[in-house]
Amino acid sequence: MQSSPIPTDSNRPFLTWQRITDWAQEHYRCRSFSKDERIPARPGLLYLVQRGAVRLVGSAQLEYAKGKPNSKPRNRNLDEAFLGFVGAGQPFELVAQSPFSLQAYSHADDTTVLWMYWHDLDNWPHFRREVLDAFRYQHQRKLLWLSTLGQRRTIDRLLGFLTLLIEEYGEYYASSNGEDGFKGYRLPWSLTHSQIGSAIGSTRVTVTRLMGKLRQQGLVYTQDDNLICIPIESEDYNKTLDLEDDAGFEEE
Amino acid sequence: MQSSPIPTDSNRPFLTWQRITDWAQEHYRCRSFSKDERIPARPGLLYLVQRGAVRLVGSAQLEYAKGKPNSKPRNRNLDEAFLGFVGAGQPFELVAQSPFSLQAYSHADDTTVLWMYWHDLDNWPHFRREVLDAFRYQHQRKLLWLSTLGQRRTIDRLLGFLTLLIEEYGEYYASSNGEDGFKGYRLPWSLTHSQIGSAIGSTRVTVTRLMGKLRQQGLVYTQDDNLICIPIESEDYNKTLDLEDDAGFEEE
Repeated sequence: MQSSPIPTDSNRPFLTWQRITDWAQEHYRCRSFSKDERIPARPGLLYLVQRGAVRLVGSAQLEYAKGKPNSKPRNRNLDEAFLGFVGAGQPFELVAQSPFSLQAYSHADDTTVLWMYWHDLDNWPHFRREVLDAFRYQHQRKLLWLSTLGQRRTIDRLLGFLTLLIEEYGEYYASSNGEDGFKGYRLPWSLTHSQIGSAIGSTRVTVTRLMGKLRQQGLVYTQDDNLICIPIESEDYNKTLDLEDDAGFEEE
Repeated sequence: MQSSPIPTDSNRPFLTWQRITDWAQEHYRCRSFSKDERIPARPGLLYLVQRGAVRLVGSAQLEYAKGKPNSKPRNRNLDEAFLGFVGAGQPFELVAQSPFSLQAYSHADDTTVLWMYWHDLDNWPHFRREVLDAFRYQHQRKLLWLSTLGQRRTIDRLLGFLTLLIEEYGEYYASSNGEDGFKGYRLPWSLTHSQIGSAIGSTRVTVTRLMGKLRQQGLVYTQDDNLICIPIESEDYNKTLDLEDDAGFEEE
């Protein structure tokens, strides 16, 4: 996308961002949240994460119930699906729509969010374009995410899901423990196995079992049993890709 | 989204669209495709569907293979996931990214697609904004789609998936067959059970079985065994929602 690059913190003009945060503070359009606090967000408004990270989730309001009049839907409260993160400097909006509703939660302590009307952006036309380009980028990422959720095997969805998240948000990480000598990229926020399960159509128990499998093969590493990492060069990872290429030729 | 409405064909200034299609024809930026033909699309370019419909799909290039050196990934060629439609008047772009790649196919005969560079839109600033707003809208729809794919039961994912598709693209339809007297909304394009399975992480066989179940309960109707419809007022549908509300109060 040469003609319309995706904005990142590094190429965003610092002055515009500074002016916007100043404006938001002056106009009481700025609020901080503690971890896992719900961020009230209304359709039609635009939100910007100034600091920390936001977790988007979706809830199903529609669920198949067997035809018997007294049957109750099962495990309703587990149907809140993890839909992704919005990091610092990034915009989000929530247009609630049946049969699913979207919500935002603070994913880290001291997460600060600004809000504005779309017409407030008339003052900063370049920034408006950045915001729209950011949504364009997020849309592309969600298409990739949908690609992995279309895979039938849960372990494929799990590995694809983690790979996409770390590709987008991962930070370089080298283990200080000389013995295992891990080098790779680390997701800077923790995710519970239950949250991962809610994203990939699986359960906490299955995710725990499959994470063990991926760890065993060196495809995934967890720092302090908490932050998920993917190695830079995993032999197994390459082996998997090689196998795939071979299979591709043989089948065609 | 009052301040920045989502563009639809009805509120798009006809003259701009006419000027753009004229420009595209003059500059050889216009091409027609027959059903299921692949539409070559490069990252960095913008595509507009002038007529017909486009089907987006994603392919996994990464798949978990058991650690044994000679194990082969299973069913590789089934891993092309259906990611949605792009209807007439709507834009799309494909930014290929590992470990998944995105492709576009014509979903209906005589589908016509225009293409342009992003900077070509400098001539039509209002239209540029419409395009970016359309991506914003598509992004919101994908979040809803991810919400349903996070559900654990395949039948929930199936019902959610069909509901979302028909909510977005459905056309009013009343059965001409007096006996069944169906009234509802119909997806104007056919989807195979295999395509549906590829979107919801399931198989053709399972989708066929579950579609039968949904049909039996009147939650779904298929016209001529081909086009999928959802009734306007399904008793079962309302019953399901009522049950959910009850459960919600009891649990809290």
